[in-house]
Amino acid sequence: MAVYTDFSDEELADFLRGYDLGTVVSLKGIAEGVENSNYLLVTETGQFILTLYEKRVDPADLPFFLGLMDHLAANGLNCPVPIHDRQGNALNVLANRPTAIISFLRGISIRRPQPEHCQAVGHALADLHRAAEGFELRRPNALSVESWRPLYEACDGRADEVRPGLGDEIEAELAYLEAHWPSDLPTGVIHADLFPDNVFFLDKKLSGLIDFYFACNDMLAYDAAVCLNAWCFEADGSLNVTKAHGLLSGYASVRCFTPAEIAALPLLARGSSLRFLLTRLYDWLTVPEGALVVPKDPLEYYRRLRFHRSVTDASAYGLGL
Amino acid sequence: MAVYTDFSDEELADFLRGYDLGTVVSLKGIAEGVENSNYLLVTETGQFILTLYEKRVDPADLPFFLGLMDHLAANGLNCPVPIHDRQGNALNVLANRPTAIISFLRGISIRRPQPEHCQAVGHALADLHRAAEGFELRRPNALSVESWRPLYEACDGRADEVRPGLGDEIEAELAYLEAHWPSDLPTGVIHADLFPDNVFFLDKKLSGLIDFYFACNDMLAYDAAVCLNAWCFEADGSLNVTKAHGLLSGYASVRCFTPAEIAALPLLARGSSLRFLLTRLYDWLTVPEGALVVPKDPLEYYRRLRFHRSVTDASAYGLGL
Repeated sequence: MAVYTDFSDEELADFLRGYDLGTVVSLKGIAEGVENSNYLLVTETGQFILTLYEKRVDPADLPFFLGLMDHLAANGLNCPVPIHDRQGNALNVLANRPTAIISFLRGISIRRPQPEHCQAVGHALADLHRAAEGFELRRPNALSVESWRPLYEACDGRADEVRPGLGDEIEAELAYLEAHWPSDLPTGVIHADLFPDNVFFLDKKLSGLIDFYFACNDMLAYDAAVCLNAWCFEADGSLNVTKAHGLLSGYASVRCFTPAEIAALPLLARGSSLRFLLTRLYDWLTVPEGALVVPKDPLEYYRRLRFHRSVTDASAYGLGL
Repeated sequence: MAVYTDFSDEELADFLRGYDLGTVVSLKGIAEGVENSNYLLVTETGQFILTLYEKRVDPADLPFFLGLMDHLAANGLNCPVPIHDRQGNALNVLANRPTAIISFLRGISIRRPQPEHCQAVGHALADLHRAAEGFELRRPNALSVESWRPLYEACDGRADEVRPGLGDEIEAELAYLEAHWPSDLPTGVIHADLFPDNVFFLDKKLSGLIDFYFACNDMLAYDAAVCLNAWCFEADGSLNVTKAHGLLSGYASVRCFTPAEIAALPLLARGSSLRFLLTRLYDWLTVPEGALVVPKDPLEYYRRLRFHRSVTDASAYGLGL
């Protein structure tokens, strides 16, 4: 959201002495990513993103995130990669924070995705799932089904402040999903947060994916369900079936969904809706009064949840069109 | 502090159609300047700063600010310049805000200035005063002596919340400065906010000045007093005479101070201290609880004010060393 951690030009110069990047030409704090402090760093040799990991990121997860970017890029995915220092380390310390320098990815994110963007994202998501194969580190999904009830409980019974009756609906959904959440679908490394912010385009072509700080091991089709929610709904809350078809067929052009995945898609989409409903609800209820950050509307995901509950099978998403 | 106004990739593409900058390669919101929304824009032809002017800037002042940058650069000062569109306009509209594209200036700001930095800043400040000669637009200093009492009154008698007795001291100082503020010193265009944030260095050489959004017509020596406060005090609140000497002699190497300016320097430094004490005090008392912005400490400028009150003449600043 903003830059949190500040450091002096001397601290930066010390930090950069370990790298082969030449002298600093420019440094600007950038508003990218909610969790960390990010700077655009320009040196004699190019542009980079300097990221100081703040307390919401567990330092124990950083080798997973940074190693994953290296692995994905080595397997042909367009994504930023950590710059290694002369000793080969991707991670160092600046201003008492674990800090990495990440390569600069060209492109800008799309505010109002069209069906062709959705198709490209589906394709890129499956590319990511393929490229991640063979990555040896593991990280469980800290925001999967087991986390949803504790997250709801942290909202302290205040869901109805946002919408009367919301608490009861969430509890019923929690009970249903806990009882029916699939456990036998194909798994792998998923992005878990592939919103339009995190996908860059250049001249209408997808130029790469960024922000792997929610990546984890989980069901591959759950990642497609996250994207369905993030890319294929209109501002009025309705599903755009053309976009959904584009996204899922783009995915399937690289990796076929199994019949079990297709059957589970409405359920996975419900789960993904509840996950974002709950994190947004928690942020909505706990944002300090007067803070500059406008929390995202939790009800956007309540409406998606209701839609997916009304769906009988994946044909509602344009699969098989 | 942060980026306020957001716009879509289509709005940006429409906006850029009027310019000769090529297609967009990257766009990142940057945390630069408190008043406006700033983006680092990379296109096929280079890097630029895209600035959307927010409501704290009076649109009527924009021709002054943008015209001044053009004038200064044309007269040899290193500073960003507005990029003109194909019709020759420096100012257009994006997301309902007056918006300009400004050239990118290489360099980074220095956190802990050394005497040689102070010398370079003094030199550059006088260069600015010289380069501004002949600029025809005028803008009064909205934060000069006439504004200080209203600003203090807007603090609603709450100064003592920050330090017991502060209110009485400010009132006494206000009365003194209103009675003794000089009116016959050389005037011209001043920067009025040349803090270390706004001065870039590359390889220990000053590479340019930025952020002309407080620039106005006022006494030239007042600008030197602002810099004295901003650059030459140590963290413990004491003046570093070597730095002050560097700053003032750097200035005088380009433009000599008149005897009246030298005599007025302690008074101008008191005025500059009170100006920043009051704006910081106001921000301190009115910042919303829980806001992410940490307001700057007003007492830093209270301590400078007390120091300058103790000074009998400009030799305390190392002038004539």
